[in-house]
Amino acid sequence: MIIDQATYRDGERHPCGDLSTELERVRSGGDGFLWVGLKDPTAAEFDLVNRELHLHPLAVEDAIKGHQRAKIEQYESSVFVVLKTLRYLDRTSDIETGELMLFIGDRFVVTVRKGQGNPLAEVRRRLENDPARLRFGPMGVLHAVMDSVVDTYRRVDREIQQDLEEIEETVFASSSGGDAPSIYRLKREVLEFRRGTGPLSAALADFMERGAGRHLNTDLHHLFRDVADHLKQVGDHVDGYDRLLRDVLDVHLAGVSVKQNEDMRKISAWVAMAAVPTLIAGIYGMNFDNMPELNMSVAVGGSQFYYGYFLVLVVMATIITTLYRMFKRSGWL
Amino acid sequence: MIIDQATYRDGERHPCGDLSTELERVRSGGDGFLWVGLKDPTAAEFDLVNRELHLHPLAVEDAIKGHQRAKIEQYESSVFVVLKTLRYLDRTSDIETGELMLFIGDRFVVTVRKGQGNPLAEVRRRLENDPARLRFGPMGVLHAVMDSVVDTYRRVDREIQQDLEEIEETVFASSSGGDAPSIYRLKREVLEFRRGTGPLSAALADFMERGAGRHLNTDLHHLFRDVADHLKQVGDHVDGYDRLLRDVLDVHLAGVSVKQNEDMRKISAWVAMAAVPTLIAGIYGMNFDNMPELNMSVAVGGSQFYYGYFLVLVVMATIITTLYRMFKRSGWL
Amino acid sequence: MIIDQATYRDGERHPCGDLSTELERVRSGGDGFLWVGLKDPTAAEFDLVNRELHLHPLAVEDAIKGHQRAKIEQYESSVFVVLKTLRYLDRTSDIETGELMLFIGDRFVVTVRKGQGNPLAEVRRRLENDPARLRFGPMGVLHAVMDSVVDTYRRVDREIQQDLEEIEETVFASSSGGDAPSIYRLKREVLEFRRGTGPLSAALADFMERGAGRHLNTDLHHLFRDVADHLKQVGDHVDGYDRLLRDVLDVHLAGVSVKQNEDMRKISAWVAMAAVPTLIAGIYGMNFDNMPELNMSVAVGGSQFYYGYFLVLVVMATIITTLYRMFKRSGWL
Amino acid sequence: MIIDQATYRDGERHPCGDLSTELERVRSGGDGFLWVGLKDPTAAEFDLVNRELHLHPLAVEDAIKGHQRAKIEQYESSVFVVLKTLRYLDRTSDIETGELMLFIGDRFVVTVRKGQGNPLAEVRRRLENDPARLRFGPMGVLHAVMDSVVDTYRRVDREIQQDLEEIEETVFASSSGGDAPSIYRLKREVLEFRRGTGPLSAALADFMERGAGRHLNTDLHHLFRDVADHLKQVGDHVDGYDRLLRDVLDVHLAGVSVKQNEDMRKISAWVAMAAVPTLIAGIYGMNFDNMPELNMSVAVGGSQFYYGYFLVLVVMATIITTLYRMFKRSGWL
Amino acid sequence: MIIDQATYRDGERHPCGDLSTELERVRSGGDGFLWVGLKDPTAAEFDLVNRELHLHPLAVEDAIKGHQRAKIEQYESSVFVVLKTLRYLDRTSDIETGELMLFIGDRFVVTVRKGQGNPLAEVRRRLENDPARLRFGPMGVLHAVMDSVVDTYRRVDREIQQDLEEIEETVFASSSGGDAPSIYRLKREVLEFRRGTGPLSAALADFMERGAGRHLNTDLHHLFRDVADHLKQVGDHVDGYDRLLRDVLDVHLAGVSVKQNEDMRKISAWVAMAAVPTLIAGIYGMNFDNMPELNMSVAVGGSQFYYGYFLVLVVMATIITTLYRMFKRSGWL
Repeated sequence: MIIDQATYRDGERHPCGDLSTELERVRSGGDGFLWVGLKDPTAAEFDLVNRELHLHPLAVEDAIKGHQRAKIEQYESSVFVVLKTLRYLDRTSDIETGELMLFIGDRFVVTVRKGQGNPLAEVRRRLENDPARLRFGPMGVLHAVMDSVVDTYRRVDREIQQDLEEIEETVFASSSGGDAPSIYRLKREVLEFRRGTGPLSAALADFMERGAGRHLNTDLHHLFRDVADHLKQVGDHVDGYDRLLRDVLDVHLAGVSVKQNEDMRKISAWVAMAAVPTLIAGIYGMNFDNMPELNMSVAVGGSQFYYGYFLVLVVMATIITTLYRMFKRSGWL
Repeated sequence: MIIDQATYRDGERHPCGDLSTELERVRSGGDGFLWVGLKDPTAAEFDLVNRELHLHPLAVEDAIKGHQRAKIEQYESSVFVVLKTLRYLDRTSDIETGELMLFIGDRFVVTVRKGQGNPLAEVRRRLENDPARLRFGPMGVLHAVMDSVVDTYRRVDREIQQDLEEIEETVFASSSGGDAPSIYRLKREVLEFRRGTGPLSAALADFMERGAGRHLNTDLHHLFRDVADHLKQVGDHVDGYDRLLRDVLDVHLAGVSVKQNEDMRKISAWVAMAAVPTLIAGIYGMNFDNMPELNMSVAVGGSQFYYGYFLVLVVMATIITTLYRMFKRSGWL
Repeated sequence: MIIDQATYRDGERHPCGDLSTELERVRSGGDGFLWVGLKDPTAAEFDLVNRELHLHPLAVEDAIKGHQRAKIEQYESSVFVVLKTLRYLDRTSDIETGELMLFIGDRFVVTVRKGQGNPLAEVRRRLENDPARLRFGPMGVLHAVMDSVVDTYRRVDREIQQDLEEIEETVFASSSGGDAPSIYRLKREVLEFRRGTGPLSAALADFMERGAGRHLNTDLHHLFRDVADHLKQVGDHVDGYDRLLRDVLDVHLAGVSVKQNEDMRKISAWVAMAAVPTLIAGIYGMNFDNMPELNMSVAVGGSQFYYGYFLVLVVMATIITTLYRMFKRSGWL
Repeated sequence: MIIDQATYRDGERHPCGDLSTELERVRSGGDGFLWVGLKDPTAAEFDLVNRELHLHPLAVEDAIKGHQRAKIEQYESSVFVVLKTLRYLDRTSDIETGELMLFIGDRFVVTVRKGQGNPLAEVRRRLENDPARLRFGPMGVLHAVMDSVVDTYRRVDREIQQDLEEIEETVFASSSGGDAPSIYRLKREVLEFRRGTGPLSAALADFMERGAGRHLNTDLHHLFRDVADHLKQVGDHVDGYDRLLRDVLDVHLAGVSVKQNEDMRKISAWVAMAAVPTLIAGIYGMNFDNMPELNMSVAVGGSQFYYGYFLVLVVMATIITTLYRMFKRSGWL
Repeated sequence: MIIDQATYRDGERHPCGDLSTELERVRSGGDGFLWVGLKDPTAAEFDLVNRELHLHPLAVEDAIKGHQRAKIEQYESSVFVVLKTLRYLDRTSDIETGELMLFIGDRFVVTVRKGQGNPLAEVRRRLENDPARLRFGPMGVLHAVMDSVVDTYRRVDREIQQDLEEIEETVFASSSGGDAPSIYRLKREVLEFRRGTGPLSAALADFMERGAGRHLNTDLHHLFRDVADHLKQVGDHVDGYDRLLRDVLDVHLAGVSVKQNEDMRKISAWVAMAAVPTLIAGIYGMNFDNMPELNMSVAVGGSQFYYGYFLVLVVMATIITTLYRMFKRSGWL
């Protein structure tokens, strides 16, 4: 689907009718450029655009098939750029990956968006309000688009940081806090994030070095350097998340087993408290003929009071209380 | 075994009779090339081919012995390429490794296939239907073969990803899900995969840099760059699998022990529930002369009803029920 | 807020009135430079300064937004430097991060401080007392500021080392010493520290290599090399902390579970000690008609003394004592 | 000890009498070279050789002292090579390390062998049967020796792979299979192996790059590239072993503890099965005056049959059987 | 403190009186050099030396403050070298770190030693007995000092290897052998060792590459290359220690818990052995009216022999013996 197409001359937008006429006009005028915005185009729609622009067939194939690695490829008369767009889904804390491709020629830009991430209408509007930047031509558009994509990276970066902090909190709040699947899922997100952002960082550095003279004047170079810096910052963070999540996972796994051991210790301590009184009860349940304790008595008010049983009950209670206190003090209960 | 041999001129296939005559013809004609396809050739069969083509003896030795690392070696008048072919066996989720070697001269290609992976008949057919590519000559054949091999890598990559997802699911479904041997086996597969694909990535980058002027025109360079990108993408994925499998293994191992601890806790809790009533039973089994509870009675309808026993049974049942509820609430049962 | 502004000529401080007049004076004089010190400036305050100095808009944007990565960027007529300042909070053992930016032109320096870290008044005072260094001009100021920042890094480095040593001591003092959250927190600090110091090290090396001829004479180069060395030393340490903390965490987690197991062993040993006497008591509680031990007797002073019960008590005591000694010797109690 | 010495001219072996006469002859003839083979030479024996060949004193010192790192050092008029030889001892699965040094001049080779590894008699014999290779001169000898050393590496590589597979099998066969010491020992072997082979790989790459024009013609270059490829393949494998052994160790350690936990669970389950019947027995051992179950009876053939006891036995048996089945189904027994 | 100072001319030692006179003499003579040896100099002592030699103030500052990273810095007219000296303390298996700095000018060397490590008297004596090396001048002294320092590294390396082997032995001797603190302490030593030796290796490589033409002739270059090789060998070892210690720690921690589990299993097995007889005793302690086993009897010699009790004792003994054998066979006791 063709979303929007326009010619930009002298930093101003002009409506664009027939592609081939417009292209001829900007070419002959030696000024201005054409910007065509596509979204999930079919091969046929793409063909329509390509008939006029003569894009490199390999780049076109990549653009239609999708699932490319982030890259910046220089062909003879054009540059082909693949950016991975990311979208953080609040509901599931998931990251959705999309793609954004740009064909950049001397007098035209074609942007191809796949998936929901990073709508470009906003980018176009902002550019149209900034004639100075529009005058940088197609490369200025590349910068604006890339800047917007990297801004999303930074937003996702902050979301991941928040998720990590939440997980840390639950894991460290109690020894059995957190759950392995959600830690693992965040790790997978971080990996996905790294896969999307890492290759772009390398490709951009390479592009800036090689393309310095050819495509980029000093001002553009500064602009791209700024984007590259933000990418590096994101990269630093990703590295950190990975290391921390490894530790959080370890602490969590250890914590779960610690919690279980505590339970076991508690149960065993209760059982142990019953063991000694049970032994005593067993002793006085023996059938020996002569067990003096059984008929210990004292004369109370004329009759004999057999107090043995009560004494034993007191002894048992004392033992249980003492053990309880000992275990409590050791932190076992 | 010689599988197929043909001459290609002007993007068209011509049957090829005697090797030496044909070779002379393409050389004198200044156009076209010879493509000989071998599969698991014996030294004798190889000799037959080599007598005319004068391949470098070291390369020939490698091709006959096999078990080489993926590489692209430039000799004076030819290039020798070793590719590792992979085949994912659905039944066992195993990866089978084979080899595919190419000798590329100015006017000929010899392809040598070892093992079952990556049949080339399909590649040849596709090339024969695409005269434009055939006109790239021997290097075009190299690209087509390499492209097909890397496509298999991507397919295997997807299979591995699926296996990983299945393992993740089983591991996270229940705390004792998954099994260590299958996780380890997948890790080994990933390693095998890395060994097959990693060296090629480096060799290809090196070849494109050094061979740029000599063997590759701009169009070919773009084609190979495309293959290199796909290889890099595979490489990114492999790195990720490795990291994730490490964590999956840890989570699984921890999960197994957690599951066992849960069992132990459950058993112990049951035992603990029996401990207190056992103690009580022991107490009333003691033989003291004076144990008032033993003959507690109430006058019911003229006769004495000794209710002590029943009272104790009720007490026991209450204790057991209470403990059961407590343990249930703590999640111990 | 403008904290301080002055002109330095011939290594001496001169008060500075209107910015534009001063700037013209130092430029026409071919000597001296202007140093403006800002702290958390608003966009308006910044504008005031910028109107005269014509700083690069991208750099200005970074300076106002903050949260940049440490970097040294060369623009046509100026250098823009971002330094991360660190402040170790004794109370919480936390590291607070701030930023310090410098715009360095041919005849001026603007320092912008964000957050509490690294006040520059002290740096300025020291420089004003060292006319030789002041004569290096704006780059001399950059060195002095950077030196002061890196000195703070070293101080924080020492604090972290102390924290690590304290944690080591508690972890190794007893098998359950230390606590996971504080180990993890230190790890996070180290990561934060690495994020602050690592990028600067790379940026400084790059600046020294590229800027050698342009901005730095030999003396300045030596001064910056000294700073770079200190940074590298800090970097070495950080790497070490990371590795050690990993091990400390493992030892701690293992230690906790070891401690719990010891408790369990102790409890079980006590229970085991009661098991055999309980069995014996059970045996003599059986109701068999003929149990000779029950009425073993000896004639003592005319009457029969039934000693069976006492014998059994002695046997029980012996068993318990023996088990106690055995367990004690095995280290189980 | 001098093992063998000979002059090679035109690809043929000639006996070699006095070193200095021979050396003069090959030098004046402009053709041929001298090959002296030493094994564990004393300083005196070495002196004898050195008097004529004027080897570099530092290289000589290294050769006598031994325990060097694998390296290829270029002196003005000679090249000094240290190779680590490996020998796999089948009995103990140990790797024995030795050293092989070569001094390579324009017209001579001195090989010095330390330890039992890689006898050179076989290499010499093979070279003498291949006049074409002998004509490459001293560098051809270096290649032949290095090729033989690297072949041993590949053999050791295969042995290690087999050891690893055996360990994997024992570890995964049963949950407590394998033993930590043997896994650790293999890891140590792999490390030893890496130490021997890794530095050579780097040194060889460096030598081929720098020495390309000076010492190596194209044919020799191809030969050395072949050796370098084999080395890289060995290196790939070593990396893999390391990663896998790490996991095998983890799985084994976890497996041991899992096995123990299984034992504990089994024991506890048996104890738990006895707990309920014991409680019941305790209950009917109580001495209450009125326990109706004790004298439940039924009139059978004129007399009363007291069946209470038998009923309780049946209840106990039922409980035990039920528990046994439950535990069996849960996999606890 | 000035330890020793002397002039060396033509490979011979001459006493050195006043520094400035001597320096003038060697400079005008175009031959010879001055060697001043300091140990823990005060700022004042240092000043005395510096007044004549005009060392670079930054280097002097570093030398007085100490705690530098190992480095080799080239100033215009001198080279400043910082070496970390190590000393293995046998008593505590500790490594003590010191520093050794050298200022190397065209006609002088100043050596500054901090701490107890690496006394230089021995180095000086050896050099004085080797006129050939003395003729290399100040750079020859640098080599001799560095060689001696690196020799100490190798000695420490061997000590660490021994410590590691001892720890391995104790850890693998029994499942609970070794202790975490001593493993950790060795790991810390290895880290300290790495910090001392690693930076020097990089600095030396850099110095040899850059300084090749300027400071080092071919002979000196070979000498330094030798030192660099030894350093690399030490580096290889350090890497290995780190990996092995990681595993040793894991095996130890797992071993401790395995040992504890074994104890628990043993205790539980003993308890389990008592459970069944206790149940049987409980059964025959029940008070049912009709329990035939209680009065099983046989007529022996006219009277009735009630054998029930004895039969039960035999049954109990059989059960205990059988369980004992079973547990023994399972390796639980």
